[in-house]
Amino acid sequence: MSAEPAAVPSGDDPFEWIDEAREKRRRAGLVRTLTPRPADSPLLDLASNDYLGLARHPEVTRAAAAAAHRWGAGATGSRLVTGTTELHAGLEAELAEYCGFEAALVLSSGYAANLAAVTALTGRGSLVVSDAGNHASLIDGCRLSRARTAVVPHSDPEAVRKTLDAARAEPDHEGRAVVVSDSVFSVDGDAAPLAAYATACRAHGAALLVDDAHGLGVLGAGGRGALWDAGLAGDRDVVATMTLSKSLGSQGGAVLGPAKVIEHLVNTARTFIFDTGLAPAAAGGALAALQLLRREPERAGRARAVARTLHRRLTAAGLAAALPDAAVVSVRAPSPEQAVQWAADCRAAGLAVGCFRPPSVPDGISRLRLTARGDLTEQQMDEAVGAILSTAPTA
Amino acid sequence: MSAEPAAVPSGDDPFEWIDEAREKRRRAGLVRTLTPRPADSPLLDLASNDYLGLARHPEVTRAAAAAAHRWGAGATGSRLVTGTTELHAGLEAELAEYCGFEAALVLSSGYAANLAAVTALTGRGSLVVSDAGNHASLIDGCRLSRARTAVVPHSDPEAVRKTLDAARAEPDHEGRAVVVSDSVFSVDGDAAPLAAYATACRAHGAALLVDDAHGLGVLGAGGRGALWDAGLAGDRDVVATMTLSKSLGSQGGAVLGPAKVIEHLVNTARTFIFDTGLAPAAAGGALAALQLLRREPERAGRARAVARTLHRRLTAAGLAAALPDAAVVSVRAPSPEQAVQWAADCRAAGLAVGCFRPPSVPDGISRLRLTARGDLTEQQMDEAVGAILSTAPTA
Ligand SMILES: Cc1ncc(COP(=O)(O)O)c(C=O)c1O
Ligand SMILES: Cc1ncc(COP(=O)(O)O)c(C=O)c1O
Repeated sequence: MSAEPAAVPSGDDPFEWIDEAREKRRRAGLVRTLTPRPADSPLLDLASNDYLGLARHPEVTRAAAAAAHRWGAGATGSRLVTGTTELHAGLEAELAEYCGFEAALVLSSGYAANLAAVTALTGRGSLVVSDAGNHASLIDGCRLSRARTAVVPHSDPEAVRKTLDAARAEPDHEGRAVVVSDSVFSVDGDAAPLAAYATACRAHGAALLVDDAHGLGVLGAGGRGALWDAGLAGDRDVVATMTLSKSLGSQGGAVLGPAKVIEHLVNTARTFIFDTGLAPAAAGGALAALQLLRREPERAGRARAVARTLHRRLTAAGLAAALPDAAVVSVRAPSPEQAVQWAADCRAAGLAVGCFRPPSVPDGISRLRLTARGDLTEQQMDEAVGAILSTAPTA
Repeated sequence: MSAEPAAVPSGDDPFEWIDEAREKRRRAGLVRTLTPRPADSPLLDLASNDYLGLARHPEVTRAAAAAAHRWGAGATGSRLVTGTTELHAGLEAELAEYCGFEAALVLSSGYAANLAAVTALTGRGSLVVSDAGNHASLIDGCRLSRARTAVVPHSDPEAVRKTLDAARAEPDHEGRAVVVSDSVFSVDGDAAPLAAYATACRAHGAALLVDDAHGLGVLGAGGRGALWDAGLAGDRDVVATMTLSKSLGSQGGAVLGPAKVIEHLVNTARTFIFDTGLAPAAAGGALAALQLLRREPERAGRARAVARTLHRRLTAAGLAAALPDAAVVSVRAPSPEQAVQWAADCRAAGLAVGCFRPPSVPDGISRLRLTARGDLTEQQMDEAVGAILSTAPTA
């Protein structure tokens, strides 16, 4: 079409700096690689976030497949143009209803939902108080917003209170403040002190924004989530974000809250407006998972019970693990190297586990991360515990 | 679990400011609402980004459905943990091969791909030169990166050259620079001067990052994209991002480039590392669309021909429209109000068209945006032209 581009210069490579970065990672033993799994992996999965084992539940996969046939493989446009189907609207209604909120908005991922919620509810002149353990997507939301962000120590309501207090006194503070936290922290599986956060917010007229990615499907009656569990769902100063990619076994994210907050997101959230709508198959799968959960609410409690059982058996055998608040069991490893070896040994023994180590853990502690899937059988739990114990480092 | 939260204070509502924002939008006539469509909408679609009409192609929907059955409704975790399947790896290999790049990385959306590419390839001390017409996701990528961003006038290689020149002279400039541009701009459908951008980059040792969301499937032999078309695909100083949500009729995004760049993203890009992998159905649908395009490469040319035909017929009838570079035809409307009315009248006449107006267009010009779908029949084109002309404002 236009003139030929100049030839690539033989001398300098604009990505030469990547060679150094790679070398540095290699020396630090921190190279990440992708390991594609086959469809029929023989590994027992305690590494995913499929807390209820619904990603491969026939009702869920059938609904996903049916949605692709009925609505198409993609949403074809922004939800504001051609990308909203009656399926999306139905999922939003069901999600809001089940979790006890006035309204919900579905986005293409939980990551996008967090970016949308944080940026749309804050802005120049406002304050975001952010828990130090928050997920990357909340942190990126804070970075994208033009608000001032105060990072407070992990799970410390007193620090939240003090920060809100101090902000009041500042001359350029407009008065808008939002406290932002995960409900269940993804690495260690510990729950945030939501009630205390809400109390701090309410003493200061601040809003509370909670990412319930790891609470939905696990906490609260029938898995209605951490905010339901804390008696906060549907309150007019509370907004939740959720993912459809963990307990609901699908893909996507959502923001739940007062109708006017949702309406505000529809009008202003860039990751909603300028993004293609969630694929129908993902919406259909998530909706089926939600309907299944409504019909079989005991699934949520089972995931919590599996977590406690795994914890009890592992600590009884001498391992160090925190009492799980949800469906994540975090087991300490003596060192980063031993954590990596331990996870590899589990894998060799037929068990997939997560492995977290610095720099991706804020506290510098290396650990195995186990998903207490609600659909694990007694025999699978025996296998899992056996594999973990037989491969444990002797430190 | 913990203490009860304080009750919601009856006095102040932390979201009171939203009432004002809503009122402002209402007065300005800028309220956006969601209009769910049924599965069997009778409207003729010229509003989506489904450029090849593949979102509902039986081969594509069947592949999406089959992938949900075979791999599950969701990827179940980060691609670094359980979220990479052989299906993802296969899609990446096919995408890289078809578009002429060494390697590819699939993410959950095109938005996430742009955030990943911009943030991973820039950083404190580096410079991003960004076309003023760039998509929101590239702009957010610039905001998230800690690089200095210089916004240059739309499609102005000379401004890019000058900006790179000036940066060289600055004391705190580390030397890393990336020029970032859409290949085809989403609103007006005009193509970026990629060859001239590459020439400017090469004179300065800068890298070129191009978002080919609207070029893939439309431009280049067999729809291999704008970079292939410009003879730039696979060059070691060039990186492309793509969406799987437009021509490929699915959901998801990808970054394509030298293998070491892709490896660097795997290790550092937050929207890749901390995000659940793309749902198998979306990966399967996109892969089938790509295979279909390989088998029927003429689909891309047909989309471009439909665009030129629509343009010719509409301008012959006296409407103002720019000659389309890809598959978007942008038709000017005399005012924002008339644009909205025109789009509504088209809709009433059975035709869905996009409508853009301030503030979502940077140049202040209101327009109808038509998607020249490659699968439109002669009769559908007649219908579309008829509906647009019979409802055109008489300004
Ligand atoms: C706490 C938390 N929030 C948000 C996300 C992002 O959700 P998604 O993967 O659906 O984008 C994740 C993990 O993926 C998470 O662990
Ligand atoms: C130019 C451009 N880049 C990126 C995106 C984002 O892609 P996705 O919708 O797949 O997130 C879009 C539109 O959605 C776009 O128009």
